[in-house]
Amino acid sequence: MTEYVNRAVRVVRAPRGLPVVEDFRIDEVPIRPPADGEVLFRAHYLSIDPAIRRRLPSTSSAPGPLGAVAGIGDVVLAGVVPAHSGLDGIAVGEVISSRHPDFAAGDLVRGGTHWQVYHTIKGAALDRIPRENRASLGDELGILGQPGFVAHCGMRLVADVRERDTVVVSAAGGAVGMVAGQIAKLAGARVIGIAGGEKTEYVVEELGFDACIDRKTANIGEQLDELCPKGVDVYFDNVGGSITRAVFDRMADFGRVVVCGMISEYNQDESEVGPPLRPVLRKRLRIEGFICYDHYDRYPEYRAWASARIAEGGLRYRNDVTEGIENAPAALIGQLSGHNRGKQLVMI
Amino acid sequence: MTEYVNRAVRVVRAPRGLPVVEDFRIDEVPIRPPADGEVLFRAHYLSIDPAIRRRLPSTSSAPGPLGAVAGIGDVVLAGVVPAHSGLDGIAVGEVISSRHPDFAAGDLVRGGTHWQVYHTIKGAALDRIPRENRASLGDELGILGQPGFVAHCGMRLVADVRERDTVVVSAAGGAVGMVAGQIAKLAGARVIGIAGGEKTEYVVEELGFDACIDRKTANIGEQLDELCPKGVDVYFDNVGGSITRAVFDRMADFGRVVVCGMISEYNQDESEVGPPLRPVLRKRLRIEGFICYDHYDRYPEYRAWASARIAEGGLRYRNDVTEGIENAPAALIGQLSGHNRGKQLVMI
Repeated sequence: MTEYVNRAVRVVRAPRGLPVVEDFRIDEVPIRPPADGEVLFRAHYLSIDPAIRRRLPSTSSAPGPLGAVAGIGDVVLAGVVPAHSGLDGIAVGEVISSRHPDFAAGDLVRGGTHWQVYHTIKGAALDRIPRENRASLGDELGILGQPGFVAHCGMRLVADVRERDTVVVSAAGGAVGMVAGQIAKLAGARVIGIAGGEKTEYVVEELGFDACIDRKTANIGEQLDELCPKGVDVYFDNVGGSITRAVFDRMADFGRVVVCGMISEYNQDESEVGPPLRPVLRKRLRIEGFICYDHYDRYPEYRAWASARIAEGGLRYRNDVTEGIENAPAALIGQLSGHNRGKQLVMI
Repeated sequence: MTEYVNRAVRVVRAPRGLPVVEDFRIDEVPIRPPADGEVLFRAHYLSIDPAIRRRLPSTSSAPGPLGAVAGIGDVVLAGVVPAHSGLDGIAVGEVISSRHPDFAAGDLVRGGTHWQVYHTIKGAALDRIPRENRASLGDELGILGQPGFVAHCGMRLVADVRERDTVVVSAAGGAVGMVAGQIAKLAGARVIGIAGGEKTEYVVEELGFDACIDRKTANIGEQLDELCPKGVDVYFDNVGGSITRAVFDRMADFGRVVVCGMISEYNQDESEVGPPLRPVLRKRLRIEGFICYDHYDRYPEYRAWASARIAEGGLRYRNDVTEGIENAPAALIGQLSGHNRGKQLVMI
């Protein structure tokens, strides 16, 4: 067997608040040959997601995310263990050798849970992905992968978005937000984004949102009052914290708050308090959390829909690609700081 | 026309926190003869509900309930204006004279919005109620009226209670809670009540809840941990505040929080903050408010169901009847303090 060098990123201390690059270290780790039922693949892209922050070692005892959290010194754990399916995977790449009947060398696959180049995992936790119907293999971690599907679950299955709804999407320029807003537009809704800086222009001019509030400079409440005079029917919440509170206070009767992510809170050890329940009663609001794992049976439907829209130019997106696994920590830190432009990937 | 004396209760100042009897005054008010399309009826029972607290004049500018709020010096406004249907009515009684084709003297009706003996209102805002199928006319304001129907809406339509769910109902001995818990039991759920003092025994021994926590003496969190080791699937929230927080922290994955009432907060001018959203995401919770007005088309179905259950002894309840309209303020204050035993009524 050819000799490969496997590089990986370890987390060497528990970050305090926003991580810094010194919390991580690049290292060489052994490649384990596949056992029966396993597959060895080389990643070409890694997905960088804000939720990884919650899988780093913590300085508090606050409840962590679903699944495991990395210990100090471990390779960064970027996905759920055990994976619910290959769609949970944080890497796409090519099979090197296989001892699983469904996979052969050269197949393109999605799977894996750690920040490393070579992955030896059970075939059952891998997706084979087709060679056609996308611009880049990295798209399988973005618009055609979990982030796009998360947007579909939240906007379609949970919010049940309808024509003429007024919809607000936070982190609108992110991997999930940009798809969520476009799904709402395609359903006939009026869509207001909230994003930071340059992304506000992208969201309006390229993605076709009706407006986008700059969270860095605007008074969000005043802008919402102006842009949503009849209140907000659907709030697709990727951020939590004070932005969520500003939107919550402007929900219309029968409004739906879809709790998808809490990027503003991932650096905090303790949960914030949430919105008061009195308006939930008075306005008959529904606040609902979801996790896409529970809906994976609907993924093929999403992928087929999204592929067709992309082909006809009706669904747009962009990826922010950083080169080299050694730059994964900086990419994560940039993303947690809101600097990424579209779906954040690391190309290896 | 016979001369009648119409007595009414006015609110003469904005209560601070829990009202006191000095905030009210009994008075004689004129009886207006019915105009075309109107009906004059004499109330035999008035419904006393915690939510009336929110219709008294306020010392703050916090948002009020749906519909109007009484001004200082006005007759107490106990229901929505305009009424959505007679089911909103806070009185049951007998028609004295009618200028509406659907009603005649002697008919039993439900309707009205104010604390007074005689009511002149549009026939369109009145329900005719049958003479049979109940123990007392007051039941039309309780088990067979809006409180029972509210329980049905919350437990069936919103929570969608299922067999083997673990259900918690707060204010379990109240007009809504006692029905909500029994609906859940009949659906095959395990039901834990939260109530104060003597009511805990009633809830278990008479209503058949599996257990009931005494909010006055127990550590609610510890009791919930013991009684609901796998967490809470449905929380039917009648109270808000710290009890809600204790239950919220123990919700199971896919739990539903039905926001029905906030009795613990009605005496406060400002809304409290609510539960944090991070567990909403992690546990895929649904928090949903509802108001029964939105579901009135389902009322006949509820009334038929409840009447049949009562007839066979499968649905139990009790009313707490105070005599004399002059005692309505004391009845309200007692109820807001948790002293009522079952549905609070005033018999006139």
